[in-house]
Amino acid sequence: MTERVVLAYSGGLDTSVAIGWIGEATGAEVIACAVDVGQGGEDLESIRQRALDCGAVEAVVADARDEFANDYCMPALKANGLYMDSYPLVSAVSRPVIVKHLVDAAKKFGATTVAHGCTGKGNDQVRFEVGIQTLGPDLKCIAPVRDLALTREKAIDYAERNDLPIATTKKNPFSIDQNVWGRAIETGFLEDIWNAPTKDVYDYTDDPAFAPAPDEVVLTFSQGIPVAIDGRPVTPLEAIQEMNRRAGAQGVGRIDIVEDRLVGIKSREIYEAPGAMALIAAHQELENVTIEREQARFKKTVGQRWTELVYDGQWFSPLKKSLDVFLDDTQRYVNGDIRMTLHAGKATVTGRRSETSLYDFNLATYDEGDSFDQSQARGFIELFGMSSKVASARDQRLAADGH
Amino acid sequence: MTERVVLAYSGGLDTSVAIGWIGEATGAEVIACAVDVGQGGEDLESIRQRALDCGAVEAVVADARDEFANDYCMPALKANGLYMDSYPLVSAVSRPVIVKHLVDAAKKFGATTVAHGCTGKGNDQVRFEVGIQTLGPDLKCIAPVRDLALTREKAIDYAERNDLPIATTKKNPFSIDQNVWGRAIETGFLEDIWNAPTKDVYDYTDDPAFAPAPDEVVLTFSQGIPVAIDGRPVTPLEAIQEMNRRAGAQGVGRIDIVEDRLVGIKSREIYEAPGAMALIAAHQELENVTIEREQARFKKTVGQRWTELVYDGQWFSPLKKSLDVFLDDTQRYVNGDIRMTLHAGKATVTGRRSETSLYDFNLATYDEGDSFDQSQARGFIELFGMSSKVASARDQRLAADGH
Amino acid sequence: MTERVVLAYSGGLDTSVAIGWIGEATGAEVIACAVDVGQGGEDLESIRQRALDCGAVEAVVADARDEFANDYCMPALKANGLYMDSYPLVSAVSRPVIVKHLVDAAKKFGATTVAHGCTGKGNDQVRFEVGIQTLGPDLKCIAPVRDLALTREKAIDYAERNDLPIATTKKNPFSIDQNVWGRAIETGFLEDIWNAPTKDVYDYTDDPAFAPAPDEVVLTFSQGIPVAIDGRPVTPLEAIQEMNRRAGAQGVGRIDIVEDRLVGIKSREIYEAPGAMALIAAHQELENVTIEREQARFKKTVGQRWTELVYDGQWFSPLKKSLDVFLDDTQRYVNGDIRMTLHAGKATVTGRRSETSLYDFNLATYDEGDSFDQSQARGFIELFGMSSKVASARDQRLAADGH
Amino acid sequence: MTERVVLAYSGGLDTSVAIGWIGEATGAEVIACAVDVGQGGEDLESIRQRALDCGAVEAVVADARDEFANDYCMPALKANGLYMDSYPLVSAVSRPVIVKHLVDAAKKFGATTVAHGCTGKGNDQVRFEVGIQTLGPDLKCIAPVRDLALTREKAIDYAERNDLPIATTKKNPFSIDQNVWGRAIETGFLEDIWNAPTKDVYDYTDDPAFAPAPDEVVLTFSQGIPVAIDGRPVTPLEAIQEMNRRAGAQGVGRIDIVEDRLVGIKSREIYEAPGAMALIAAHQELENVTIEREQARFKKTVGQRWTELVYDGQWFSPLKKSLDVFLDDTQRYVNGDIRMTLHAGKATVTGRRSETSLYDFNLATYDEGDSFDQSQARGFIELFGMSSKVASARDQRLAADGH
Repeated sequence: MTERVVLAYSGGLDTSVAIGWIGEATGAEVIACAVDVGQGGEDLESIRQRALDCGAVEAVVADARDEFANDYCMPALKANGLYMDSYPLVSAVSRPVIVKHLVDAAKKFGATTVAHGCTGKGNDQVRFEVGIQTLGPDLKCIAPVRDLALTREKAIDYAERNDLPIATTKKNPFSIDQNVWGRAIETGFLEDIWNAPTKDVYDYTDDPAFAPAPDEVVLTFSQGIPVAIDGRPVTPLEAIQEMNRRAGAQGVGRIDIVEDRLVGIKSREIYEAPGAMALIAAHQELENVTIEREQARFKKTVGQRWTELVYDGQWFSPLKKSLDVFLDDTQRYVNGDIRMTLHAGKATVTGRRSETSLYDFNLATYDEGDSFDQSQARGFIELFGMSSKVASARDQRLAADGH
Repeated sequence: MTERVVLAYSGGLDTSVAIGWIGEATGAEVIACAVDVGQGGEDLESIRQRALDCGAVEAVVADARDEFANDYCMPALKANGLYMDSYPLVSAVSRPVIVKHLVDAAKKFGATTVAHGCTGKGNDQVRFEVGIQTLGPDLKCIAPVRDLALTREKAIDYAERNDLPIATTKKNPFSIDQNVWGRAIETGFLEDIWNAPTKDVYDYTDDPAFAPAPDEVVLTFSQGIPVAIDGRPVTPLEAIQEMNRRAGAQGVGRIDIVEDRLVGIKSREIYEAPGAMALIAAHQELENVTIEREQARFKKTVGQRWTELVYDGQWFSPLKKSLDVFLDDTQRYVNGDIRMTLHAGKATVTGRRSETSLYDFNLATYDEGDSFDQSQARGFIELFGMSSKVASARDQRLAADGH
Repeated sequence: MTERVVLAYSGGLDTSVAIGWIGEATGAEVIACAVDVGQGGEDLESIRQRALDCGAVEAVVADARDEFANDYCMPALKANGLYMDSYPLVSAVSRPVIVKHLVDAAKKFGATTVAHGCTGKGNDQVRFEVGIQTLGPDLKCIAPVRDLALTREKAIDYAERNDLPIATTKKNPFSIDQNVWGRAIETGFLEDIWNAPTKDVYDYTDDPAFAPAPDEVVLTFSQGIPVAIDGRPVTPLEAIQEMNRRAGAQGVGRIDIVEDRLVGIKSREIYEAPGAMALIAAHQELENVTIEREQARFKKTVGQRWTELVYDGQWFSPLKKSLDVFLDDTQRYVNGDIRMTLHAGKATVTGRRSETSLYDFNLATYDEGDSFDQSQARGFIELFGMSSKVASARDQRLAADGH
Repeated sequence: MTERVVLAYSGGLDTSVAIGWIGEATGAEVIACAVDVGQGGEDLESIRQRALDCGAVEAVVADARDEFANDYCMPALKANGLYMDSYPLVSAVSRPVIVKHLVDAAKKFGATTVAHGCTGKGNDQVRFEVGIQTLGPDLKCIAPVRDLALTREKAIDYAERNDLPIATTKKNPFSIDQNVWGRAIETGFLEDIWNAPTKDVYDYTDDPAFAPAPDEVVLTFSQGIPVAIDGRPVTPLEAIQEMNRRAGAQGVGRIDIVEDRLVGIKSREIYEAPGAMALIAAHQELENVTIEREQARFKKTVGQRWTELVYDGQWFSPLKKSLDVFLDDTQRYVNGDIRMTLHAGKATVTGRRSETSLYDFNLATYDEGDSFDQSQARGFIELFGMSSKVASARDQRLAADGH
């Protein structure tokens, strides 16, 4: 029987050519699989038809936008997932949902191999292949760009020779990946890290230097998830989309960093994630109000590990699952409203209101009649500082003895 | 012999009254000690004279601004010290330098007790007393507000009865603490956490909604410390002061959070730290360029613990010292220039340049002729993902067996 | 209405006297509450009757041995809970189950205060009071020894004057706390930390220097919990009891350490925990076989924090609950048999066998025909070592340039 | 000019054959380099001569035993380095010192490549190659067994055909690596993890089941390093050797675990490390006496990361260096005597004595006249438990409201 390969298909030049390229190199039948994670662009039906026109024996398309928002973006929000304190894991959270659809397609169509369009020096190849290995331990992986020498030039030449129904114009100067959680831009003149990004780099955000009037928004959360905006109920997908629009108009969520890739090199990355960054800012402050101190401190350690694992392509790993149950447990009381002002590149929290708040006015106030018993402080301080005091007395005694 | 008490003296109403109040309550002689950490206000000589006029047997004043910047703010910069990812430890780093001067004065003047003006429900009492216990294990501590019932009303009454040379006007609606590293504001209507801060809360920063034209600045660091601004050499104190001025004019560094105090309660805090926040943003990105990945990841854990310790008043503890040697070791190659745009509340890094960079264009570029060998990736991915793959195969086998 | 106090009652001299002592000092009625956590000694009914004879208005007793084993010891086993890598939390896990019964009794009998027999310098007062505060935020706490000056001498005198039905012989030279999870011994000549423990210190273990013939045991676990010994099904309580007997006969589980107390001092502690230590050794090795590497590494961090929290009396804290859900999730596949030899103070694992093992003979073997593809290693090593290599090249270049 | 390869040479069959095998496969000249890390066996001069007789163009040998003990074993002792809480990093600490000598030899003799005898599925290939890459970023690595198909059978055949001066007897059933810090044994029937080790597996330790009379030893440490045994001054190497002999005679330090390899698989390992395990036990307890609590707690985290890094071959990485300065700082006061009983497989601490002790009898004692003020405890407990209490009150209020 002929071998079958499921190909992660975008509808663009490279993966359109890859359909035939893989077939010629391996003799296998190619099944194209396109997943909508909110990247915009063409409708799924056009993409499906193009895959067939380029030689795919089957083409499956999936609108995974709600699934992506619910099951991939919301966990990142609960973790306040910011790699190197900056990057909201835009591509890192989209790869596993695509992997899930690819592996499902492989099982459905009896494929033994999954193919993707990544190069050999980025993080995404790892995220695809570790994910595929994990969900389908018997599946093989192949990357035509990396493993079958499919360069840009060869792709253009192949498309023209074979009359593929796809434009072969010169490549965008940047390499771009985008979905509803954000947009990533790299390469080109940005590879000189002294160069500032130019205006044409951005698409999800307007220039914060010329922002419209401030936009005040009230976000309502339930168990760490946004459930209403300005009082109107929203799904997670709608929440991200609306905040992309409103925070994007104010230039919120532009990020420019030199980043540590999993493959051991540093790279320069530009991101836009207006919705993600505004939601994370609101979520963090609501956590400040509703989560107990020691739980909050340890949750930072868990969130950092979660973020590194997801960045490193370990979405489906055992540790990731265990961290998720920890994070979910911390979100139980993360309920309430956060009022924010979006303006000129900033999302600033100005108020918080919660039925599950741990802020206790009567304990906190400096007004008379508070319920905090100040006389307790002396004993607390004495014992809290005891071990340092004993150590210091030792050090001073030894110093005095000439040690 | 008469007991002697060293009092942390600010020159304000409360500590001016405390001189006599302590004397009457304990029979001790009071020595006033005022330390300039860049809080502004009156000159030190006026403060010294007032202490004597209020009954102090001795009054010592110290300009500790450079010492504070060099030995207390710079370590916080190396640690990127942001408590709860937000608060740059404004008061927390100033207490230990004041403590050091108080304990020195106690030794010089033969005092057995150190007094401070804090209440019994804040962090600063802990920072003072744990610091004093540690540097002077034989010293006792006393806080007239907490331990000797010195309320605001009693202070006004005492000052008027005794004709002290100090104004007894109604208190500022807010409780304020400030130094060159930043400014902290609390109490008043801010204790309702749904209330937004009003304009009169701020002093170090102008309104970012009405910012002047963008201000571009180039910061030069050596071993993690700012050494030049726009090419002009600066001391740490000058760097903070200049950035306070320039970033403050753009409204950079306003912070509004509900914070976990050491004494177990949540409180609402407003901070302004334009210089500190701009310097930390620049320093972090220079670290991204110059520090190896695993060192950077673990440094986050160390920085978080350092920040918690300093927030919790453990500046002089053994662990804090050991974390400092770790942090110093990581800063060896944190050298180079960061270009930043200050505008409308944001300090945005736009370029980085370093002789000690670990960013390698030839490894990172997607241009042809790069030095990265993509064929290595397959082996890496296979072994990197091996343990998850083996676990997943186990789980799927068991699931298939009906477990 | 008369106030009521629930007293943690052991049946011994101090708490028998405390019934009347509290009544006289506070005017409250005292309800005695005794909880069996496997400490041995008198039967519960005798204890109940003595409490009434000593003046308690009510006396409740509870056999909590299974509850203690299931809900308190088993979580400690899942966490491999060893404070300072040594102490299996003997007293620390028993306090919360006692607290639960005390707070239940307070609710049932309308008490406003809970009393316990601890001194003011140990950990147990914190464990009792923080637990009580947490389960009953409205309850007050009192400790007669600490707060009402009830010294040993006064207790003997009071018992004799009031003819209480309790022996007033000279105190045991040691302070002892014991339950089914282990036994703790302190004070006396052990306070000189150069002194070795003498034979009379021990009760749960025989001298390992004169051990009987080796005892081989096979422990079967399901989801991290012992469910059979040598093939016979056991409850957690039975597992601990049988291992106490068998490992105790071999002198397994003696511990002698200088320990960091929560109240800031170091103390010298002797423990015996034959069952706990043998079970933990078996459980750890079964985890080695069944838990994926990264999950195992992070579980150590979680286990350390869990152990510190429980030692510090935070059993009912929000963070403890979240750590428990993490730990439970890791135990899903911790199933199988561990064969152990108990002999002369050591519990040595000699074999492991599991349906859910991640050990894969075909990957691990050095025999021919293994399934591990060694050619993958080169690529793995190259990328795994890349970031260190780039850093080292930087350092060497700078050193050569004379930096 | 002819390329040159430096080969890590043991004097055994495989590396003796590798000299000619590499030469034939690559055309390069081979320089043999043998390093004595206390593995015992032949004298270095015999090994040197054999290398030359087997065709090496140069042969260098180095007695690195003191260097290994001082600069590699002692840091592991300071870290209490036990991978997975069990394995004292026997091979992991020896690889870097060998790498250092290999890279030095490569520089001295102008070699471009370093070769080692490891297979492609173990940790040691990573430790060699990452170490070599880091110390010599321009050097290439080659492993004849992995890269040049040098199997055992081919080696025997080659040695016989070429009349090499080396025995070609059947291989030992086990794969063994040993040095002064310990001995590692794997493969053979041990690959069935239900099999117990047999007596012939062990060489450094006698059977603990038939131990001689107990052996009491007093170890003296200075700054974390053993400096005397029973009052006689020793070097680190002498300390390890003497403890290997004395603890080995008692069967101390046998380890049997299923271990997580860096390359993603689990393997079964047997170790013997009598000296290392006894020294670590003593060192840990001396730390308990001399290190402040919070420093000790964080040192565990640092020690765990140090241990993972060293296990993973990152000895020369930037993070490892920074962790070392942290660890060194903690050892400043780790001075004093530990008395231990070695018997029947156990090294039991029975006493500790230190001029730099933080154990304070007057604070710790339950005798009358202690210096601990018990009245401080109430305030401490109230504030220490405050955040959990507030959270619990919130939870109970919501539960009562039917949430």
